[in-house]
Amino acid sequence: MAAKNKTNTKSKTKKGKPDPVVVSGMRPTGALHLGHLNGALKSWQRMQDESACYFFVADWHALTTEYAATDAIATNVDAMILDWLAVGMDPERSVLFLQSEVPAHAELFLMYSMIIPVPWLERVPTYKEQQEQLEGRDLSTLGFLGYPLLQAADITAYKATQVPVGEDQLPHVELTREVARRFNRLYDEIFPEPKGVIVPAARVPGTDGRKMSKSYGNSVDLTDDPEQIEKKLSRMVTDTRRQRRTDPGDPKDCPAFQLHEIYCTPEERAELTEGCKTASIGCLDCKKVMIKHVVAEVEPMRQRRQEFEKRPGVVTEILEDGGRRAREVANATLAEAKEAMGL
Amino acid sequence: MAAKNKTNTKSKTKKGKPDPVVVSGMRPTGALHLGHLNGALKSWQRMQDESACYFFVADWHALTTEYAATDAIATNVDAMILDWLAVGMDPERSVLFLQSEVPAHAELFLMYSMIIPVPWLERVPTYKEQQEQLEGRDLSTLGFLGYPLLQAADITAYKATQVPVGEDQLPHVELTREVARRFNRLYDEIFPEPKGVIVPAARVPGTDGRKMSKSYGNSVDLTDDPEQIEKKLSRMVTDTRRQRRTDPGDPKDCPAFQLHEIYCTPEERAELTEGCKTASIGCLDCKKVMIKHVVAEVEPMRQRRQEFEKRPGVVTEILEDGGRRAREVANATLAEAKEAMGL
Repeated sequence: MAAKNKTNTKSKTKKGKPDPVVVSGMRPTGALHLGHLNGALKSWQRMQDESACYFFVADWHALTTEYAATDAIATNVDAMILDWLAVGMDPERSVLFLQSEVPAHAELFLMYSMIIPVPWLERVPTYKEQQEQLEGRDLSTLGFLGYPLLQAADITAYKATQVPVGEDQLPHVELTREVARRFNRLYDEIFPEPKGVIVPAARVPGTDGRKMSKSYGNSVDLTDDPEQIEKKLSRMVTDTRRQRRTDPGDPKDCPAFQLHEIYCTPEERAELTEGCKTASIGCLDCKKVMIKHVVAEVEPMRQRRQEFEKRPGVVTEILEDGGRRAREVANATLAEAKEAMGL
Repeated sequence: MAAKNKTNTKSKTKKGKPDPVVVSGMRPTGALHLGHLNGALKSWQRMQDESACYFFVADWHALTTEYAATDAIATNVDAMILDWLAVGMDPERSVLFLQSEVPAHAELFLMYSMIIPVPWLERVPTYKEQQEQLEGRDLSTLGFLGYPLLQAADITAYKATQVPVGEDQLPHVELTREVARRFNRLYDEIFPEPKGVIVPAARVPGTDGRKMSKSYGNSVDLTDDPEQIEKKLSRMVTDTRRQRRTDPGDPKDCPAFQLHEIYCTPEERAELTEGCKTASIGCLDCKKVMIKHVVAEVEPMRQRRQEFEKRPGVVTEILEDGGRRAREVANATLAEAKEAMGL
């Protein structure tokens, strides 16, 4: 695997198609949940069989919004790596690492800041959106403005060709393509233009029907045991027309049924749809079918996580090894970019 | 000396006065001249006897304005180190290094970008000024906006207490003090607040009377031989009232006399002032006295430079050693800052 990664630094951008390289990251925001699992993590898992993969815990990115309250970051990093291992991320096949342990990300960020106009960053749709959403926090920092450039650094450090992202992050991949083009034009043809690969089902509903999110308190976490999962999902909101057991409903208007879409078989869904529309089954009966599948998926993960938790130092070990492998590739890219620039 | 540098990382910011540490840098813009010598370099030389000193070639900074034409940077770096050695900078007493070889500068820049509001940077006086002066180049980049923060990283990486600067750079040191205060308040008392030390005679006149500057083509370079120096300075503009040899003038209105102020003895100046005001001497006679002193100072430097040029690899050696020593200190500071931040 080390050898496979190494070929990456030699990927042909000048002639022929570059080797497929995948890069993606997650902010250490706390316990992972079904949203992460069905969003990024299942895609990542598939990708690690097909491409050289670099997945990182984005602790620098966490600072863009959390700079005033950083106490939880270190704990969240550990928890995130354990969750990754629990769902089946493989530190042999993928390079799992901590962003801040690869200085080349910061160096490439600085490099790109020298060639990218501020208006390009002000135009990124998430910039104004997030500032509005997170009103009350001071998000006028240079880092908040510049964080799509840090993403460009994250991605190009490994000459990524594919970047699995949620739909809202596509403009950032587009910016990375623009950064790569501008660098290549100004200096030398170093960087491939990565493609954004939209991860499916990124908008898993939480128990209150809104997008599942830790900050909404509506999540089913990968660390929840079967009892907790059952409790949370049993209370999940359903089609509001089913006030009473005898009121018919429509799965199309049922947040819980979006989980059925992910977890149940087509046969089960057909049967439950019929039952909902005719009020021949209650919401709880309906949810029980889905809950069974969720538990069947999450419980082995939780147990695997507990196995890893018993091995002291396992996270440190993985991050050390991953950091070393990531630095090797990123430093080679940085050296190439600096030389092209004349530094 | 290595030991002396090491104490720096333990400098007491919490209790008592920190050890004096000096940091300053120069952009690799080409041959150094009398302006650099009488501005920064003589101050640097004095300081290296009194404090732990870190002097760097600011190649990252060069990109803020030169990103579109970087061909000369590498050559200029070598030339600059040779000039430093020529004037008597001592790589044993001072740490001489290349900015881009210390990743911690980029990492601290990224770190500060997360906590510093964009308006703080827009308010720095040089921001709008330089954009106006360098009209025609696209200086709307994030790096141009952020470069006072990169300076803050340069300075704080070594916990500098003193920063020799030209008067126009004082607002940047003030910003560094604000960055240090904000970091210390948000996380932990890590950084001393550095003081700007204004270097004297930073505005040495060039042969056309404007500030001496390579880009004006009015400089006397440290690589000029006595003949070149004499030729350049003999043609230097003087008080415009002295159209003819018999017209009296006034040294107060004579650009050349500003060099007399630096180079001649008080007795010489008194005599020449008298001669000028009474038209008893010509401008060339007057300049010859000053030229003699300039040559006496510059010629030994030029010869020392030639000695260094004969030693292949001397620049590489100095930058490698300096880079190693700088990284040691800067990485220790970075580790301390990251820990305080919770990374």
